[in-house]
Amino acid sequence: MFEENLVWHKHHVGKKERSIQKGQQPCLMWFTGLSGAGKSTIADLVEQELYNRGHHTYLLDGDNVRKGLNKDLGFSDEDRVENIRRIGEVAKLLVDSGLIVLSAFISPFKVDRQMVRELFPDGEFVEIFVSTPIEVCEKRDPKGLYRKARAGQIKQFTGVDSAYEAPHQAEITVDASYGDPRILAGKIVTYLEISGYCKTFEKAMAVK
Amino acid sequence: MFEENLVWHKHHVGKKERSIQKGQQPCLMWFTGLSGAGKSTIADLVEQELYNRGHHTYLLDGDNVRKGLNKDLGFSDEDRVENIRRIGEVAKLLVDSGLIVLSAFISPFKVDRQMVRELFPDGEFVEIFVSTPIEVCEKRDPKGLYRKARAGQIKQFTGVDSAYEAPHQAEITVDASYGDPRILAGKIVTYLEISGYCKTFEKAMAVK
Repeated sequence: MFEENLVWHKHHVGKKERSIQKGQQPCLMWFTGLSGAGKSTIADLVEQELYNRGHHTYLLDGDNVRKGLNKDLGFSDEDRVENIRRIGEVAKLLVDSGLIVLSAFISPFKVDRQMVRELFPDGEFVEIFVSTPIEVCEKRDPKGLYRKARAGQIKQFTGVDSAYEAPHQAEITVDASYGDPRILAGKIVTYLEISGYCKTFEKAMAVK
Repeated sequence: MFEENLVWHKHHVGKKERSIQKGQQPCLMWFTGLSGAGKSTIADLVEQELYNRGHHTYLLDGDNVRKGLNKDLGFSDEDRVENIRRIGEVAKLLVDSGLIVLSAFISPFKVDRQMVRELFPDGEFVEIFVSTPIEVCEKRDPKGLYRKARAGQIKQFTGVDSAYEAPHQAEITVDASYGDPRILAGKIVTYLEISGYCKTFEKAMAVK
């Protein structure tokens, strides 16, 4: 009979080992902004660029969270808070697994984003404010949601009859009103390079 | 102004890309068994061996789940089901991120384990029954929980006053009553090799 939790845990594979294995500094890149601001589009482009440089990433968004882990949650105030809390906790596990995690959720309230920030040690939470103004988002209206909200078919829609609290201490702010979103994604990747989260383009190419 | 979700998603980084990048077949290895059976010890050893072969893994257990994502849950029947459901959904995200995921939870009820199995496509859920009999687990009692349960200080403790439903279709069964747990971990790794989830020892060495 062997003793539990005694000898074998010595070589336990931890966050540090997983980080070294993947050659990167894991973190959570939290995209926040109005519906239609361009969060998912930009996050997707950043992920592609990181992948091309050999980084290990994961993108959390409505598609993979609302249909699974958070499918029991509705849109009441209480459920919205719980939605963000769980996303933060899942992101924490993914960061612990050594990944650079990207998340794209409106997350309109400061207090909720602050709650997620506090789950992480300093430097592991990178807030990215996609500041595209509501006039542009509403004109764009890619999912037809603003139209429905204005018609009263959706209640408590952020920017229409529910507030969006803009961050004042976001690490990065980008306005996706015009221009090529690849330029904005590039700006974010440059920030990650300078801050030591990801390999520079030259280093990534040298490895290939 | 650019169109959302139109062109850029073409090169979307998906499960397949992440799997190729990591050179492995992602899956969830679900360890089930009584408290003190040896689930965590064996899962930990399997993870070490996989890591040594260059695989990307993550271990979900009470330490990183109960204190974070599931800290709002108690031990009522309803909360126990929700606990397992969330663990299954989180494991699904981790598998989607390309990792070989290990989980170590008592998970006493067949219906709950079946619920998790059904979240995954065929072959991605590997159930590992650590079948150490209760007499051994209770004698071992690494956390003193059986003693407390017998004294009535813990209610609804699996094996004492709550049932454990043994799996009949587990992919792997190991009894950790005696012998070196590394041998049992080796048996599991051999299963993973044969089934194509992980590199063989020789291939892993050749890469190094």
